[in-house]
Amino acid sequence: MTSRIAGQVRIVGTGLLGASIGHGLVARGVDVILHDASRANVSLAIDYGAGRAPVARDDPVLVVVAVPPDATAEVVAAELRAWPAATVTDVASVKAGILTELEAEGADTSRYVGSHPLAGRERGGAISARADLFIGRPWVICVDASNRGELARRRLVEDLVLDLGAFPVEMTADEHDASVALVSHVPQVVSTLLARRLGGASEPAIGLAGGGLRDTTRIASSDPELWVQILGANAEQVTAILKAYRDDLDTVLAALDDPAAPGARRTIAEVLAGGNAGVARIPGKHGQANHFSQLVIMVDDKPGEIGRLLTEIGEAGVNLEDLRLEHSPGAQIGLAEISVLPEVEERLAKELEARGWKIAGAFA
Amino acid sequence: MTSRIAGQVRIVGTGLLGASIGHGLVARGVDVILHDASRANVSLAIDYGAGRAPVARDDPVLVVVAVPPDATAEVVAAELRAWPAATVTDVASVKAGILTELEAEGADTSRYVGSHPLAGRERGGAISARADLFIGRPWVICVDASNRGELARRRLVEDLVLDLGAFPVEMTADEHDASVALVSHVPQVVSTLLARRLGGASEPAIGLAGGGLRDTTRIASSDPELWVQILGANAEQVTAILKAYRDDLDTVLAALDDPAAPGARRTIAEVLAGGNAGVARIPGKHGQANHFSQLVIMVDDKPGEIGRLLTEIGEAGVNLEDLRLEHSPGAQIGLAEISVLPEVEERLAKELEARGWKIAGAFA
Repeated sequence: MTSRIAGQVRIVGTGLLGASIGHGLVARGVDVILHDASRANVSLAIDYGAGRAPVARDDPVLVVVAVPPDATAEVVAAELRAWPAATVTDVASVKAGILTELEAEGADTSRYVGSHPLAGRERGGAISARADLFIGRPWVICVDASNRGELARRRLVEDLVLDLGAFPVEMTADEHDASVALVSHVPQVVSTLLARRLGGASEPAIGLAGGGLRDTTRIASSDPELWVQILGANAEQVTAILKAYRDDLDTVLAALDDPAAPGARRTIAEVLAGGNAGVARIPGKHGQANHFSQLVIMVDDKPGEIGRLLTEIGEAGVNLEDLRLEHSPGAQIGLAEISVLPEVEERLAKELEARGWKIAGAFA
Repeated sequence: MTSRIAGQVRIVGTGLLGASIGHGLVARGVDVILHDASRANVSLAIDYGAGRAPVARDDPVLVVVAVPPDATAEVVAAELRAWPAATVTDVASVKAGILTELEAEGADTSRYVGSHPLAGRERGGAISARADLFIGRPWVICVDASNRGELARRRLVEDLVLDLGAFPVEMTADEHDASVALVSHVPQVVSTLLARRLGGASEPAIGLAGGGLRDTTRIASSDPELWVQILGANAEQVTAILKAYRDDLDTVLAALDDPAAPGARRTIAEVLAGGNAGVARIPGKHGQANHFSQLVIMVDDKPGEIGRLLTEIGEAGVNLEDLRLEHSPGAQIGLAEISVLPEVEERLAKELEARGWKIAGAFA
């Protein structure tokens, strides 16, 4: 594998993202220089093969700042000063504030190109770093007035993104922050607030929990320290959406105050229909809207059963579009919900039943 | 398979739940009588083998009312009158209002035992009915003053629950309604309101959506007609929780109004930590709290690949505790996140790597 990037890449911050970028570039033969405020962290990343220690004659063409959001602007400014010819990018998950801070400090923002990989998860740390963390993920590259003339520098960051297997998405910093507020930061708050309600729940009530509650609260287990920084940095955009959310919530509460009142049910139905319409806009696999059929299959809870099921689906020549496992509390049996193209569902159901699988449901 | 229930069971309402109960009981040799306000519906259910048409000499020991929530009390009252010796149960997802209505009508509630199967999904209709819909699911049986003396009638409903493979959970109607408000109805509202925010989103913003947004909004695709009835019937319990939720939301909004103010970050951190604590209370597989390790494995998007992966996990003698597939928009590759017992994670990762699988992450 060869790299698009020609020249040294310096990575500042060797946590999960920084070290993963290092691994990905090293795998393509790039000369990667690692730096971290913690000597122990950087040694660990070097031991794992994410890059090498700095030396006096280093001359990076690109610097990637991968430190916590709160520290990003300061480190970007220092790197711009330290490497007067280099392009500097960062991977923080909120972008406009960093640009504002850099401009206030008089940093040379013509050489700064903000970016943000939408990597699947943010937990893990340097030890969990992987060369393939970014494969197939969107990675936003900011196109703002301050660097609009510097096409070559944006291309360099694009090369980084492509070298790591991600796909570049161009947006302004404000567009980026509004977008992630909607698809990431507000869902985090909404999920967290719901999970908080479980704190005082009785054991029997919690025992009735199903897949709906589990899905809705899954991201509520995210790291508070990181999220305080993200929400604080994107407060304005998050607040705008949360206020509209609260207005809708007040509409529902008013309708539920007297559900028999004229118009109350219609109000609730319209809110629910609006939710239907909203969720339908989320792209499924490969950027398409979800339009698969589901089969629910019973699976014994022992090693290899799920594998046997999916192998037999493969033998039937059917491609699995999605899969979800549901375990019932107290049961030694699981349900596998598989999504397939509608035109193969019926044939697959017959083939699986012929092989002895029990189908617990089929849904379009 | 023999049944615990001895005698005829009459099912009123042959939608997904009613017809599934019919299939399950027929499979155990029970004489099942089907009735539905729609002649076409009941004919279809009979054609599919969920039971038989009523005849003049019918004498059911148990009547199961499985009609929409709004119609349940009226139908239960009619069935109590029509069968003066029978026990009558229902499967509506809100319980206290039905009991109140029956008492107001002077119905013989000593023979009524409310119940509610927490069946995985409510979409599908009669054609999707399956004998095994309830296997391993909790099924609430109401224990209220009005039928407290009628232990034999509660036992009969318990027999129904056990015959269908579900497990009985005893609660009062109020306890039930408060519990499902928390674990089902409020999550529905929260998810719906979040999904509604996507209505006005730009295509580029939606394109950044990941697994977090998809999970949080999945249940927002539920049927509005059904949910208007459920939310209306449980308005008081749902409102109580939603008001506490809104108070927390206002706390977050106040803190985000000036995230640099003294105490603002601490407030947000405490809300996030409260979310962590809440989600940790949700039972995972087999009623235990989640305490598994996760491995994220890259899988080519072609038939049989997931099957091969899981078969090889089985060959390694490792039991899969959970599995989640993540597809990236635009990528011809997927990520499989598998959950295993922590003590086998490292060995499994080595075995899979030895077999050529790429591991994109490992998390405790």
